[in-house]
Amino acid sequence: MPADTRPLVLSCPLPRSLDLIFAPAARAVLHDRYHIVETTDAALPGLPDGTLAEVRHIIGQPPLDEATLARLESLRCIFNVESNLLNNMPYDAAFARGIHVVTTGAVFAQPVAEIGLGFALALARGIHTADADFRAGREKWGGAGNAGARLLTGAAIGIIGLGDLGRALARVLAGFQPQLRVFDPWLAPSQIRAQAATPATLAEVLANSDVVFVTAAVTSENRAFLGAESFAAMKPGASFILLSRADVVDFPALMAAVASGHINAASDVFPEEPLAADHPVRSLPGFLLSAHRAGALDVAFTRMGDMVLEDMALIDRGLPPQVCKRAERETVARMRSRPVVAN
Amino acid sequence: MPADTRPLVLSCPLPRSLDLIFAPAARAVLHDRYHIVETTDAALPGLPDGTLAEVRHIIGQPPLDEATLARLESLRCIFNVESNLLNNMPYDAAFARGIHVVTTGAVFAQPVAEIGLGFALALARGIHTADADFRAGREKWGGAGNAGARLLTGAAIGIIGLGDLGRALARVLAGFQPQLRVFDPWLAPSQIRAQAATPATLAEVLANSDVVFVTAAVTSENRAFLGAESFAAMKPGASFILLSRADVVDFPALMAAVASGHINAASDVFPEEPLAADHPVRSLPGFLLSAHRAGALDVAFTRMGDMVLEDMALIDRGLPPQVCKRAERETVARMRSRPVVAN
Amino acid sequence: MPADTRPLVLSCPLPRSLDLIFAPAARAVLHDRYHIVETTDAALPGLPDGTLAEVRHIIGQPPLDEATLARLESLRCIFNVESNLLNNMPYDAAFARGIHVVTTGAVFAQPVAEIGLGFALALARGIHTADADFRAGREKWGGAGNAGARLLTGAAIGIIGLGDLGRALARVLAGFQPQLRVFDPWLAPSQIRAQAATPATLAEVLANSDVVFVTAAVTSENRAFLGAESFAAMKPGASFILLSRADVVDFPALMAAVASGHINAASDVFPEEPLAADHPVRSLPGFLLSAHRAGALDVAFTRMGDMVLEDMALIDRGLPPQVCKRAERETVARMRSRPVVAN
Amino acid sequence: MPADTRPLVLSCPLPRSLDLIFAPAARAVLHDRYHIVETTDAALPGLPDGTLAEVRHIIGQPPLDEATLARLESLRCIFNVESNLLNNMPYDAAFARGIHVVTTGAVFAQPVAEIGLGFALALARGIHTADADFRAGREKWGGAGNAGARLLTGAAIGIIGLGDLGRALARVLAGFQPQLRVFDPWLAPSQIRAQAATPATLAEVLANSDVVFVTAAVTSENRAFLGAESFAAMKPGASFILLSRADVVDFPALMAAVASGHINAASDVFPEEPLAADHPVRSLPGFLLSAHRAGALDVAFTRMGDMVLEDMALIDRGLPPQVCKRAERETVARMRSRPVVAN
Repeated sequence: MPADTRPLVLSCPLPRSLDLIFAPAARAVLHDRYHIVETTDAALPGLPDGTLAEVRHIIGQPPLDEATLARLESLRCIFNVESNLLNNMPYDAAFARGIHVVTTGAVFAQPVAEIGLGFALALARGIHTADADFRAGREKWGGAGNAGARLLTGAAIGIIGLGDLGRALARVLAGFQPQLRVFDPWLAPSQIRAQAATPATLAEVLANSDVVFVTAAVTSENRAFLGAESFAAMKPGASFILLSRADVVDFPALMAAVASGHINAASDVFPEEPLAADHPVRSLPGFLLSAHRAGALDVAFTRMGDMVLEDMALIDRGLPPQVCKRAERETVARMRSRPVVAN
Repeated sequence: MPADTRPLVLSCPLPRSLDLIFAPAARAVLHDRYHIVETTDAALPGLPDGTLAEVRHIIGQPPLDEATLARLESLRCIFNVESNLLNNMPYDAAFARGIHVVTTGAVFAQPVAEIGLGFALALARGIHTADADFRAGREKWGGAGNAGARLLTGAAIGIIGLGDLGRALARVLAGFQPQLRVFDPWLAPSQIRAQAATPATLAEVLANSDVVFVTAAVTSENRAFLGAESFAAMKPGASFILLSRADVVDFPALMAAVASGHINAASDVFPEEPLAADHPVRSLPGFLLSAHRAGALDVAFTRMGDMVLEDMALIDRGLPPQVCKRAERETVARMRSRPVVAN
Repeated sequence: MPADTRPLVLSCPLPRSLDLIFAPAARAVLHDRYHIVETTDAALPGLPDGTLAEVRHIIGQPPLDEATLARLESLRCIFNVESNLLNNMPYDAAFARGIHVVTTGAVFAQPVAEIGLGFALALARGIHTADADFRAGREKWGGAGNAGARLLTGAAIGIIGLGDLGRALARVLAGFQPQLRVFDPWLAPSQIRAQAATPATLAEVLANSDVVFVTAAVTSENRAFLGAESFAAMKPGASFILLSRADVVDFPALMAAVASGHINAASDVFPEEPLAADHPVRSLPGFLLSAHRAGALDVAFTRMGDMVLEDMALIDRGLPPQVCKRAERETVARMRSRPVVAN
Repeated sequence: MPADTRPLVLSCPLPRSLDLIFAPAARAVLHDRYHIVETTDAALPGLPDGTLAEVRHIIGQPPLDEATLARLESLRCIFNVESNLLNNMPYDAAFARGIHVVTTGAVFAQPVAEIGLGFALALARGIHTADADFRAGREKWGGAGNAGARLLTGAAIGIIGLGDLGRALARVLAGFQPQLRVFDPWLAPSQIRAQAATPATLAEVLANSDVVFVTAAVTSENRAFLGAESFAAMKPGASFILLSRADVVDFPALMAAVASGHINAASDVFPEEPLAADHPVRSLPGFLLSAHRAGALDVAFTRMGDMVLEDMALIDRGLPPQVCKRAERETVARMRSRPVVAN
């Protein structure tokens, strides 16, 4: 039997699975190109030295200490397909060795952006409430049903956080030719202008926007940074659409701002998930509810496998990864997402 | 008192009103430039010869016989702001004299296109049903709630009827880079390609589209042209979105196709409006309901006045109208919309 | 032999020819669908009554008097494929009968717009002069050769005349995201804004633009309307690019403005064509010369045949023509182009 | 006198200068925010330990050995404003410490892309040759001058190398809606599709394109990779436009392909610069010549300073640089550009 020349890849992708993130055709390519050794976070350090020494890629985000990392002599890239960066490995040591740590969360950008636009249109035009009224026999016909209806075309739109999700949102909004303001303290102004948007302060975004989209990841600096004052600063009747993580807002303050009628809101994320059966937001009018389902589409998960295969191919040829997003020294310790439990 | 040199304009815009279609600033311009004589459909023929002889423009769609038209010696343009062309005037005689008859229905294109996209996203992602479930305490979290969820990006979209509404829809869809097929028997193929769409037969649109938008006006040729066979030809799970007039579909057949689970649907228009309290569509799952409210926004109505002012200004300078849509000899007798009663 | 049921079409397209404007495949379709009777301007009135009575379409711009027009009882459309509207037929009588008169000059829009952009880049970057210098052994290397070099991206661009050509130009300029100002007295401001341009006065266009494109047809009102004062009003170093007709400018004044170094220019049209061998513009630096060749591409001419076939097909089905441009009562007498002699 | 708390920046930007790359306003900001110590490549290692220990940023590409790098204890980023990466510092040691090495060559992308499009239009329409003919009294009028004229709209365009320059080119081409094929072995296919282009092999690009743009940097793998066989594989009459570095082509083979009439070409770069006075390309018809002036515009150089300021500001805040391009471990040793001598 000929020697197996395929590069060795460790697979410990929990909470994901290879079945979830690789479509059948991609799965076949994976096994064709690579020798996949499936393991678990717990079992990994116990693998033989010879095995660990050959590993070129890891698919997953296993906890690693300095010793185990040192045994992974040939390691080039860790593909964190869970996509939230936990503080569970010696990143500095990895970066010093030139080991890339990349994430695949970009797959969620398109589905979340699309549903985010759907939320904005639903709030602007009362799509969901009009359907409910119609079913209850209390619908209003014609213009009578349009108090508060607003066009998105040419509207003032604010985006907080212009990562993959914010950019995908700007793209689906393109057909509406909005006046786009972006607040993102981790980007240079020229990067924002390159997206046909105006760099703005948080205050400017809140004060001027008809719709505010929050697409920023949670970091050590922005926990609950949107609170009562932020919502009070928004335009009367504006929409607040939360797409990234609940921890960036003071959720009770948001509910209060909606309950007062000052703004309306939509959210795909909540302080606890699942949410308690008696949580007041369940009965709050003007708040469009979505049970953290904006990203979790089959086509999103299988795109992860495609991205991993593309970058592994580049790395195999001695090139740097280009498709997945790289964890950076400067920021890896500042991410504060809670780990994903369910897909 | 100096002679009034302002051109004379008759105003009989029912069911609209000057207050509805002219914002305050535009209303002021109107009265500044023109001598407005307000009248009614019934009273118009009884106006003095001298008055009728001076009329340059009519805002409205008053019934006219050949004799009255002949008395309107200076008439250049009839601005039908109701926007459905009734067979209530001798169009041939008007056209022979070079009198333009124009409509302002284009104002509804943007609002209807926007809500149409909102319907498509609501159906593709279950936005309204997920909110209802959440409120009822039966929401599904994460991917579990995404059976049947679909992306619009890159999807196969079909548009039936590429007038102002169809084009506005293509524009708001631009950010989704769809594969766009258009069926419109009143256009040349090159006009469809100029909108980055593929000319297609009705059968091709129905068979290939993930979402079918019906944006075609009712004509003498297309009443109920979409029936049981059309819906059966659609892809399983596709969305049918009716935005123009209910008379182009066999409505019971549409409901049956939705009830069977073969497709889902959204409609802003119904066979009778208002709809009977016990109409079965009110309790049909998979059918998103909107009580003919897609176009009737204040900003749409006031755009009518702006369009009328722009075209009156062109005509006053001896140029043809460019902004409102002209009624054509060939098609004016073939339009079959029911008149608007309420705004 | 079965009766020939094909509609009868008269063909007298001089100075064009059927070979020029119909590609082989389109030519075959033409003869397949229609009974083509080739004639000449002079011979047409002498054709038998029976023939003239059956003519549905005319391809050409034959002189017609009221009597001949009356004999053309079935005529629906005159396809003026020369594209300049001569005052050689009773247009009012034609329009009164609902006979369409259409032109096919839109075929030139794309080729002229492309070369117009090429002229702008050549002037902005000295492309032609640098090549000439290089061949003469006097080239300047690197930045030394870039005095006066300017980017088009984000530049202030002015377009005078926003017909088919002006719009095609706006389209090819899209990748440069210019600040676009448009002066066109025959359009409403909303039409200009719909092209992502700002409506402006002629003075504003001249004073603010880095590049001024003249794409306006000659009319009875605009002969030589761009003269010494216009050029003096332009920004120092700006480019003036003449793409439509020489008669809209005071050509000696243009040459003087270029000779003074105030602006540079490009032109595809000249006061006399061909131009005298000793005309001073031939030796004027800063003036890019093109011998009226911007539109006359084979692919443009054959597009005429395609457009004619598409509109004839619509008209045959009782619909109005959509693709070719219609002559309008209000403006047909105001066009002042000189007829085309050569293709 | 208060202590100078401004971060210390070493400036040794030859062959650039601070005056060249910082516009006056940006220069003022630079000195306001940073303590600039101007030095030279030779003098740098001789600076006091105390000074080197405080240096946060270096503007320039000074040769550094491991010892000097070690003395630069606080160094976070080297801004190589020359933009070609020389193998003159221990990159591995720098990367291991997390020191970023970035380049500013992206400033040339827009100017080079614009002139590249100008070259393509000049070749497609004979703009420069028609002007020369006109001046020499041998111009051809109308269609007679258009043998070989071609439209870019909808044409098959090939781009070899999709870095900043290739992407800028794709952007200015957007208004022409080309069929875009891209060959770039350093990118994943999904990155190419994200630019609305089709990933293709080199052979496919050469065989199918009406215009081939070479925008790829020289690497250790692609020296003279375009030779006689490549040009022979191109479509007859196609245009070859060389915008990056002459070393990627076999220049005599290119001249031969042009001399044979098989293709035409444009180039901004040459095997030796300046080029010998008797070099045969100077008299080769069908070859548009530009003396390496495509990028060197004042506005490009001053954008370098803006980029440096933006990234220094991010780094000062503990964030990674985002605007300038990072040198990568995997590729830094494979770049093979010759250093810039003149600006």
